[in-house]
Amino acid sequence: MALIVHKYGGTSMGSTERIRSVARRVAKWVRAGHRMVVVPSAMSGETNRLLGLAKELQPARLDTAALRELDMIAATGEQVSVGLLALALQAEGVPAVSYAGWQVPIRTDAAYTKARITSIDDTRVRADLDAGRVVVITGFQGVDDAGHVTTLGRGGSDTSAVAVAAALGADECLIYTDVDGVYTTDPRVVPEARRLHTISFEEMLEMASLGSKVLQIRSVEFAGKYRVPLRVLSSFTDWGIPIDEEARSGTLITFEEDEKMEQAVVSGIAFNRDEAKVTVLGVPDRPGIAYQILGAVADANIDVDMIIQNVSHDGRTDFSFTVHRNDHPRVMDLLKQKVVPALGAREVIGDARICKVSIVGIGMKSHVGVAAKMFRTLSEEGINIQMISTSEIKTSVVIDEKYMELAVRALHRAFELDEPAAA
Amino acid sequence: MALIVHKYGGTSMGSTERIRSVARRVAKWVRAGHRMVVVPSAMSGETNRLLGLAKELQPARLDTAALRELDMIAATGEQVSVGLLALALQAEGVPAVSYAGWQVPIRTDAAYTKARITSIDDTRVRADLDAGRVVVITGFQGVDDAGHVTTLGRGGSDTSAVAVAAALGADECLIYTDVDGVYTTDPRVVPEARRLHTISFEEMLEMASLGSKVLQIRSVEFAGKYRVPLRVLSSFTDWGIPIDEEARSGTLITFEEDEKMEQAVVSGIAFNRDEAKVTVLGVPDRPGIAYQILGAVADANIDVDMIIQNVSHDGRTDFSFTVHRNDHPRVMDLLKQKVVPALGAREVIGDARICKVSIVGIGMKSHVGVAAKMFRTLSEEGINIQMISTSEIKTSVVIDEKYMELAVRALHRAFELDEPAAA
Repeated sequence: MALIVHKYGGTSMGSTERIRSVARRVAKWVRAGHRMVVVPSAMSGETNRLLGLAKELQPARLDTAALRELDMIAATGEQVSVGLLALALQAEGVPAVSYAGWQVPIRTDAAYTKARITSIDDTRVRADLDAGRVVVITGFQGVDDAGHVTTLGRGGSDTSAVAVAAALGADECLIYTDVDGVYTTDPRVVPEARRLHTISFEEMLEMASLGSKVLQIRSVEFAGKYRVPLRVLSSFTDWGIPIDEEARSGTLITFEEDEKMEQAVVSGIAFNRDEAKVTVLGVPDRPGIAYQILGAVADANIDVDMIIQNVSHDGRTDFSFTVHRNDHPRVMDLLKQKVVPALGAREVIGDARICKVSIVGIGMKSHVGVAAKMFRTLSEEGINIQMISTSEIKTSVVIDEKYMELAVRALHRAFELDEPAAA
Repeated sequence: MALIVHKYGGTSMGSTERIRSVARRVAKWVRAGHRMVVVPSAMSGETNRLLGLAKELQPARLDTAALRELDMIAATGEQVSVGLLALALQAEGVPAVSYAGWQVPIRTDAAYTKARITSIDDTRVRADLDAGRVVVITGFQGVDDAGHVTTLGRGGSDTSAVAVAAALGADECLIYTDVDGVYTTDPRVVPEARRLHTISFEEMLEMASLGSKVLQIRSVEFAGKYRVPLRVLSSFTDWGIPIDEEARSGTLITFEEDEKMEQAVVSGIAFNRDEAKVTVLGVPDRPGIAYQILGAVADANIDVDMIIQNVSHDGRTDFSFTVHRNDHPRVMDLLKQKVVPALGAREVIGDARICKVSIVGIGMKSHVGVAAKMFRTLSEEGINIQMISTSEIKTSVVIDEKYMELAVRALHRAFELDEPAAA
């Protein structure tokens, strides 16, 4: 008997028929002897419908007072979901009770529409579990210290589920979604892509930040911080499949180094073509230039991803970084008109037709030559590398976007990700 | 400068366009210098939509746990309304903040789906009013002592508005609705029916309980108990009409005996054809028979309205009462099969083709002969009276339903309600 948290996305909760399936799945876990907490999202389309109504009425400028009302409105979507799911569980003969974020309470800061969870009181939930009830808790929302309703931002229900699991010391948090796990890379690009049985949370964090859309990155951070075993699995399997089979399906994101990990050096290939490259050429090499360039970019509210500065020649260096493709025209203007003249740099060049390809693997920590193998593979395919950035468990390169599929497939093969797992 | 509570029904909140009109009307009152609290209902149709979803999933038997979830779900309709109205007010340049029942808090007992308000904490609302904000509070709902969401039952938003007005000591509570006030009788039956400028709360209470649908009876009880001046007025006038005109429109329900009341002996004629009559004939006249008959009826969860027992002859009496027409077949069966044999009564007869017509007027307290005039008027029209029931300020008769319109029109004329008010 374990304490288990299930999280269901909006598609899984998309109709009364689907909610009934969720209830039957949860009931199966209850009958297997588990103590269950369920965190559902709003029914698909509901949050958009609510914010659409708000948009017709809201003031032109969304100040704090208006953002507060948006959260008040949007939070109702999940409140309806938890009530409906609790009813469906009761109809299955399973005692259940629903709570909105403020009832638990799930405390957050006061940053409306993008609040962060600060604490969760587990007293009430534990009492219900002890009384044999399934506890259904709203995702996506909480309450600040002054008693105002807050929401965590899009996809925040993943974070809610992990935070609840952490607060309760749950044995596992299962994220039911519309994919059946985490893959070595996107199967739409590499048909031989293989589902991972396990992945370390550090790898998952890199995969999420490098463009894998399976989980919201904050939920992975939370899982890592509080050491919550997290499993991503499909909500589209029949609810009646044997529980042992279901409990082993999907991908387990684990923080246990001593667990039997898959032994591949590289776990996955991530890619992202949302970025664009900017290079300031001939920058005088003196203290403070990185700040002068990036400070101006930050002041314009533009996020920077990769940053590269190489050693200088003749007192001058080249400074490169990547930004979101949408921000590329704006950052080029800014640099040309303000930063380059002020710095006395030579010129600024940019390229939006790039992509970033990354290999991720906790095995890289202990294996030398992994990056070299990546570079050799790309070289053998005739692909020129424009920028390189590394961390302990990932290596990213920027290449021409037309080579993206070729690069991903070649790397997937080179690191033997096509092969079935040894396990 | 006064403290004013506005209440808007679901039709007034039925679309974003209508919500904008409500915001403009409230903004007009703010600009006239008033401190404003607004209690809106859910958008029309929304509560039915939510309970329709619940109905598809809920268990066959609605126990307390299921009723709790229905309240959790239904309460979201008003939460969306308050958020949208607050946004619309902000868009009009009026600072506004919304609160759900639990945030005020509006405390209730734990009788889910039909809770009663026990107390309202005015601290938070007062602080916002002092800070120059309009406070928008959900109708229909509250929170019990254990922190569960409760609802007050259909039409409960009227009660919420009056209760909030009482807690704040508001100068007036304005109920904006789809009729423009309280009439001497239903204008669909008597075209000469006249809108009352004022009515005493006791009269309004009788009118509401006798079939007038203008206000929920509990809201009138609340207004009387806490002496809240209540005004019923139309939400379909243009929001831009002069505020002085709007503030004098509709019908004021007042508890001030010393206020200048309209001097009519009878204020209105109420009628109701939802009832059916039951008579147990030849009941042995001994202690406890009323309990033996009505106890059995109550045990079957059937509400009884009028109850009549006349003096006995030869140790036997006849016992009559009225029930809702829907309950008539059931109550007849119950009496024939169980009660009549147990009592040793002669027989039971019933009639569903009846109606109840009542005259209501605080003036009846000090005028003799009012009931006599009613009976004479009906007699002159050849209408036979089947049952009579009186209270200090009303006289009700049961007659054949085919005479209903005739009786109402004749009484309306006889008590000079057709005439314009002397004021």
